[in-house]
Amino acid sequence: MLNDILTRRSTRKFKNKVIPAHMLEVIIEAGRYAPSGCNVQQAHFLVVQSKSVLAKLGELVQQEFAKMEPTDDMPQTVKNNIAGAKAGNKSFHYNPQILIIVANSVDNPNAMADTACAIDNMMVMANHINLGTCWINQLRWLQDNEVLIEYLQSIGMKEGEKVYGAMSLGFPDTANGMPERTPLARTGNEVTFVE
Amino acid sequence: MLNDILTRRSTRKFKNKVIPAHMLEVIIEAGRYAPSGCNVQQAHFLVVQSKSVLAKLGELVQQEFAKMEPTDDMPQTVKNNIAGAKAGNKSFHYNPQILIIVANSVDNPNAMADTACAIDNMMVMANHINLGTCWINQLRWLQDNEVLIEYLQSIGMKEGEKVYGAMSLGFPDTANGMPERTPLARTGNEVTFVE
Repeated sequence: MLNDILTRRSTRKFKNKVIPAHMLEVIIEAGRYAPSGCNVQQAHFLVVQSKSVLAKLGELVQQEFAKMEPTDDMPQTVKNNIAGAKAGNKSFHYNPQILIIVANSVDNPNAMADTACAIDNMMVMANHINLGTCWINQLRWLQDNEVLIEYLQSIGMKEGEKVYGAMSLGFPDTANGMPERTPLARTGNEVTFVE
Repeated sequence: MLNDILTRRSTRKFKNKVIPAHMLEVIIEAGRYAPSGCNVQQAHFLVVQSKSVLAKLGELVQQEFAKMEPTDDMPQTVKNNIAGAKAGNKSFHYNPQILIIVANSVDNPNAMADTACAIDNMMVMANHINLGTCWINQLRWLQDNEVLIEYLQSIGMKEGEKVYGAMSLGFPDTANGMPERTPLARTGNEVTFVE
């Protein structure tokens, strides 16, 4: 259990290999059983397996970031996305077998926290069964973009929902097919004991 | 592993029983190894074991909520906290053995998500070793409150940090000492397959 947490790392290159239904099921189950503030259970998992939808999302994210100009109040990571999009980068999701987009109710004051817990559970669970994952934030940065909202609604997102996070999922494209598992050192994430 | 996730439930009554160091260590380790956006590792864990600090936090949270008046744009849960504080409720943290407060950098655009992942990991890990946890949000709702900020800085929170979440931790005060584990049904948290 602790080892599944310690060895979870990002996978950014995936095999074109179908994920068996029983594996996908336990991952989604892990996400659905994440805690939610006041137990509202308002996460909505859009499980995107369609290659054409993945490609379209890639195009739209590139197109919409490319329209933007960096401003001082933007996080650096958003500026990087804008620069990447202008340079032609279409693969924000690393072409996974599946992209699980997690939307949540805009009326939920814990939408971000609840979504994060769901994605975190899915990442640890996927690592446990030797699948690779990567947190994908671009659809969250574009959560208010009207072009993206319209497209996401066409594939199942509801009125009153926005994207708060997403996760790429697939078999890692490594020599032995296993996720990279050497834990990255944690030099940050400080602990202060108040005794 | 999946079972640890499915059976995690909130504990709101704790025994006055010290948590052995080796148990606390693995829980904090699980939190520290949570993912963070761009791997910034800016979560700061304030591990509060002091009874007097727990009591003082209870008093300050009550005092500061009691000063507030509910407004239309507040989440219902904040309104409930204000009403509870005016009625004299001091025990926002359920008097746990330990309260782990998670602060993060205000400059981190993923502060809420990173904090949530850390707390989620700690909850699943604690459940795995038969300890009880409860997500505590009051210090987040009061993250901009100057009285609380001053007190939290006096116990170790740094300039440039705010509280994004907290977690009560302890041995569950149940007949057999074990956490309640019957999974709550997940009727929400909908899944849409895009194939």
